Amino acid sequence: MKGLAMKRINEIGWIEKDKPSCGPTDAIIRPLAIAPCTSDVHTVWEGAIGDRHDLILGHEAVGVVDEVGDQVKVFKKGDRVIVPAITPDWGSDAAQRGFSSQTNAPLGGWKFSNDKDGSMAEYFHVNEADFNLAYLPDEMTPEDACMMVDMWSTGFMGAENANIPLGGNVAVLGIGAVGLSAILGAKLQGAARIFAVGTRPVSVKVAKEYGATDIISYKDGDTGEQIKAATNGEGVDAVIVAGGGPDILIDAVNCARPGSVVSNINYFGAGDTLPIPRVAWGFGMADIDIHTGLCPGGRTRMEQLTALALTGRGDPGKLITHRFEGLENLEEALLLMKDKPKDLIKPVVIIDD
Amino acid sequence: MKGLAMKRINEIGWIEKDKPSCGPTDAIIRPLAIAPCTSDVHTVWEGAIGDRHDLILGHEAVGVVDEVGDQVKVFKKGDRVIVPAITPDWGSDAAQRGFSSQTNAPLGGWKFSNDKDGSMAEYFHVNEADFNLAYLPDEMTPEDACMMVDMWSTGFMGAENANIPLGGNVAVLGIGAVGLSAILGAKLQGAARIFAVGTRPVSVKVAKEYGATDIISYKDGDTGEQIKAATNGEGVDAVIVAGGGPDILIDAVNCARPGSVVSNINYFGAGDTLPIPRVAWGFGMADIDIHTGLCPGGRTRMEQLTALALTGRGDPGKLITHRFEGLENLEEALLLMKDKPKDLIKPVVIIDD
Amino acid sequence: MKGLAMKRINEIGWIEKDKPSCGPTDAIIRPLAIAPCTSDVHTVWEGAIGDRHDLILGHEAVGVVDEVGDQVKVFKKGDRVIVPAITPDWGSDAAQRGFSSQTNAPLGGWKFSNDKDGSMAEYFHVNEADFNLAYLPDEMTPEDACMMVDMWSTGFMGAENANIPLGGNVAVLGIGAVGLSAILGAKLQGAARIFAVGTRPVSVKVAKEYGATDIISYKDGDTGEQIKAATNGEGVDAVIVAGGGPDILIDAVNCARPGSVVSNINYFGAGDTLPIPRVAWGFGMADIDIHTGLCPGGRTRMEQLTALALTGRGDPGKLITHRFEGLENLEEALLLMKDKPKDLIKPVVIIDD
Amino acid sequence: MKGLAMKRINEIGWIEKDKPSCGPTDAIIRPLAIAPCTSDVHTVWEGAIGDRHDLILGHEAVGVVDEVGDQVKVFKKGDRVIVPAITPDWGSDAAQRGFSSQTNAPLGGWKFSNDKDGSMAEYFHVNEADFNLAYLPDEMTPEDACMMVDMWSTGFMGAENANIPLGGNVAVLGIGAVGLSAILGAKLQGAARIFAVGTRPVSVKVAKEYGATDIISYKDGDTGEQIKAATNGEGVDAVIVAGGGPDILIDAVNCARPGSVVSNINYFGAGDTLPIPRVAWGFGMADIDIHTGLCPGGRTRMEQLTALALTGRGDPGKLITHRFEGLENLEEALLLMKDKPKDLIKPVVIIDD
Repeated sequence: MKGLAMKRINEIGWIEKDKPSCGPTDAIIRPLAIAPCTSDVHTVWEGAIGDRHDLILGHEAVGVVDEVGDQVKVFKKGDRVIVPAITPDWGSDAAQRGFSSQTNAPLGGWKFSNDKDGSMAEYFHVNEADFNLAYLPDEMTPEDACMMVDMWSTGFMGAENANIPLGGNVAVLGIGAVGLSAILGAKLQGAARIFAVGTRPVSVKVAKEYGATDIISYKDGDTGEQIKAATNGEGVDAVIVAGGGPDILIDAVNCARPGSVVSNINYFGAGDTLPIPRVAWGFGMADIDIHTGLCPGGRTRMEQLTALALTGRGDPGKLITHRFEGLENLEEALLLMKDKPKDLIKPVVIIDD
Repeated sequence: MKGLAMKRINEIGWIEKDKPSCGPTDAIIRPLAIAPCTSDVHTVWEGAIGDRHDLILGHEAVGVVDEVGDQVKVFKKGDRVIVPAITPDWGSDAAQRGFSSQTNAPLGGWKFSNDKDGSMAEYFHVNEADFNLAYLPDEMTPEDACMMVDMWSTGFMGAENANIPLGGNVAVLGIGAVGLSAILGAKLQGAARIFAVGTRPVSVKVAKEYGATDIISYKDGDTGEQIKAATNGEGVDAVIVAGGGPDILIDAVNCARPGSVVSNINYFGAGDTLPIPRVAWGFGMADIDIHTGLCPGGRTRMEQLTALALTGRGDPGKLITHRFEGLENLEEALLLMKDKPKDLIKPVVIIDD
Repeated sequence: MKGLAMKRINEIGWIEKDKPSCGPTDAIIRPLAIAPCTSDVHTVWEGAIGDRHDLILGHEAVGVVDEVGDQVKVFKKGDRVIVPAITPDWGSDAAQRGFSSQTNAPLGGWKFSNDKDGSMAEYFHVNEADFNLAYLPDEMTPEDACMMVDMWSTGFMGAENANIPLGGNVAVLGIGAVGLSAILGAKLQGAARIFAVGTRPVSVKVAKEYGATDIISYKDGDTGEQIKAATNGEGVDAVIVAGGGPDILIDAVNCARPGSVVSNINYFGAGDTLPIPRVAWGFGMADIDIHTGLCPGGRTRMEQLTALALTGRGDPGKLITHRFEGLENLEEALLLMKDKPKDLIKPVVIIDD
Repeated sequence: MKGLAMKRINEIGWIEKDKPSCGPTDAIIRPLAIAPCTSDVHTVWEGAIGDRHDLILGHEAVGVVDEVGDQVKVFKKGDRVIVPAITPDWGSDAAQRGFSSQTNAPLGGWKFSNDKDGSMAEYFHVNEADFNLAYLPDEMTPEDACMMVDMWSTGFMGAENANIPLGGNVAVLGIGAVGLSAILGAKLQGAARIFAVGTRPVSVKVAKEYGATDIISYKDGDTGEQIKAATNGEGVDAVIVAGGGPDILIDAVNCARPGSVVSNINYFGAGDTLPIPRVAWGFGMADIDIHTGLCPGGRTRMEQLTALALTGRGDPGKLITHRFEGLENLEEALLLMKDKPKDLIKPVVIIDD
């Protein structure tokens, strides 16, 4: 089969590989929609997870079941399924402790294009199929569903981890696809005022539709100071960090009030250490907690996100700005993600059933 | 001054009393909007809190500060203020333990028309004014704000106590003003599907506007069974009990799935005991927790609710079906609450400034 | 193989059955220690889970791995293992939602002597062996470890669910083996004063060793009133219900303060409904939450309990009052549990390796 | 009256001041026991809170009520009282939000020797006396109680904030008086294995008595690596940071497992920023939360700590290594805290009643 792979750091290309083999609890999926992710860009062009050779990329996909192992009971060939970006080993110690995304190793639930070949191929492999797939409802397109498997799940987690009081105010730093999802997540967790920090018009529009009440631009000055000024100098109840370089935690803590949470969903690709500002952090005593996490995966999570979309709590399709037809256009879509033109939020590739 | 009082069980009427005196940390308020509450009806016509003589009724009000004590620093004569139904003693042991509504005694934060004269008068008294009043914003009418002091605060608490997973499904039993607020609260806590159990068209309309996705009528059969049937026999992640007689917990537990919360915001006015169904409760082992609480009060809560209204997360005015002008119409409004005509959700009395 | 079975309601006896077969992720265990449980008594002599025919009893056991399926990676024949009473399906929806003991159905993690044959046999079957077994350390005897698989796990859960403030006071109603474990659990969750309600001298002794500071006897009057009197009329921060008939929740709520938790670990074997006292519950508004749960199972839980024993945080062996040698004495041990002589806490049967 | 003051940065000395005046809700206290704190050393010799002139030092004290304001109802002249280091404004917005130590400003509950004169004087002032004092029980000495007001309260908070699973393992970095209290706190929150990182024999002894199971010395190599090695390379469920310089968070994150908490109780006195190690933090996605807080204060907290001491859950007196008699020896005690001789944990000055 064909797959779009990282050949080595800084180089991608189509390669031929055997179709993955299907263990007793596994499934093999043929994709219907695939979205490139900033993580793919980090992986290839920043070498963020180290050098890899001929590793098929991609972890955001929706597809059709092509094959299941003999112990798979729920799903069968032909089922249209949503595939979470994170597919935990559900019995592992970390999952039993409540941290299923960290199974077996740090970030161990992240298997696609990390521990094994990803979804940018004619077929791809899913572990524990009964527990890591969810039905794609008829009412939802594959490409819309594809926006939930990582973007919504990660962005919403940013809000869930932020302990937002009902009616509290929230700042979201960064309004790419994950930051926008965090804005919607914050609304769905009861935030009143939501400050969105970003400038691209295409994102600002969705930010408002998803629930942002105030748009803050770094062009107008220090963002932390702008947010503090807008909150009578007090700062916000929660800051969701959804972008930025190593120094972004400084901005985040600067606009967090005493008794608040900084909830990180940013992938830090560079820097030995990430600085926390000492004085703004109250010398370590200001009750400003810094939370982290990796995108929640698994079947139940996908079903819950699906329910939100179907009941109109939010529209995942709003994140899609560029649509391609056919697997052969995947490379173009991925390069778009790398180049980030001004009108881009998220590209998706749709493949005929 | 004049006040509308419970003269004794089953009898109300206007009485004359001295204007309340203002202690050093207190405020005296002149009402701009007053809403009768079902609790007032319980108090008078069911004797729910025992017999009382010439106790001025009412605990839902918005007004103007008429007088403040010499230690009050924030508020001053002439300020337009929202007055929470519950006004805790903020230093009390219960508040320090995190249960401010239970200050000093069970339900001890409920002072109006319980421990002291209520707000259905020309003037009424507020303890710890700096911490139990909140500014009424110019953008909000007194009557709309009046819907937040008990209805929103109680209904939202029902959702906050319900530990709703993001994308979870919720049943709200009862769609009076508190149940409707619980529906909005459930939406603001991330519920996807929300089952509203009730039949009155006036309430059904607001239920849908506030976020209900499914309307369940007891006329169509056992409500617990209907909800289970609608959820593939599994039941819901959370049940908010917002009405019903002593047996309502049976319905609630019957439609709760293993691993869920029954969140009670119902005032139980009758019965020595309230029954939990043994088998549906998993013989006491089904991980169906039963949560309770009394309406959160205080300044911060009111500010957070105000922020939700001002950012368009919900419109408290939707609860108002009947408007009266002038204090003299308070009795009619209260009797309306007692008689509950079919087109009633909530009456309010507006008093000129 | 031989097994001690429920032949029908009210009748037990030894039967012959085929050795259970081992699926790909399963293990077959040969027991080294087996403890009868009050639940076995409920099952047989109260018909608590309905009629059953030739169902092998028992769910508390420690043993040796006799056989593993071909996908089992961690454990192998000859390993000495602790077997939790509850063995969840770790990928199930309930487990993904955080309620692993409720997998697939209410109480669905409880398989032994409920959904399948139990451990009172020459061999018994364990599902998802890698995730539902834990190594028995050399420093621990099989019989001591056997006290952790249900008694400690259930009792400790009672304390974990009770949200005990550090330095709070707790009442434990019932001091059988589970109630005693709840006392130790309460101490390990930071309780200061712990009221143990019970009278048997053998249990009172262990109650004190496990951390009880006050012993309350129902012979001295209403237990709720005694506890309230001992706490200046305020009641306790948490009540753990570890015994009693259908009316025990009345006692529990009566001694709970406003802003507290009643944490149930009692198996309610009788009654259509279980009564909550309306007035003491603050008419449903006293912030007295009622929590429930089923014994946590799985490998990680067993490892955590083992760590507590090995670090001296508590001695599970204190629960054992009667020791038998040889599988053939299991019936006598079980009947002892049924007859509950005065000097009994928990019997155990030890089987040579 | 006389008081031991910071005259300016790097200089202390006795000064004369007027006895503080007593507002309507305040109390004036005459100390019976005073303990110097490392914070006093930070304040004077590191200028940690900026320059101050003739500010009386001290925030750890137990005393006798000398005077109360006319609105104080609970306490009266002659009562022996425990005074928490942190005395919140209980009605403030931060307290209503659940962060009472952050009242009015970051760390705003810390008033003694920060916003106003401290307790190292013949008399000192307490705000909101009814809610910020607690009775000293007859069974407890003033000097033992004095160890609870900051050391126990802060150290225990470190454990409470760490979300320790029952039977989890914990590392405590630093075994001064606060770190030792964190060890006891971790035991009281259900930790099994507790790694104490430190070397002083006097502290190691108390660490073991308070519950540490493993002593780790930085002299034996990188502490993070030692702890990982001792936990099969997995790291611990919680790390409590109770000492160290700006880089200590690097050690902390290095020994924290994915799905854990780093709970900081360290006062960071130097450095513009505090570094988090990027890779060990899972690029910001390892579910390693970093929690903070300021010592909980108030009456209820003091009562809860007192209950722990009286029920034998721990002995605060174990922290005292040096005792002085008479206010005149306070300077010597404070200098001891500055010089930190090898046999010092905590000095205390006892003043005759």
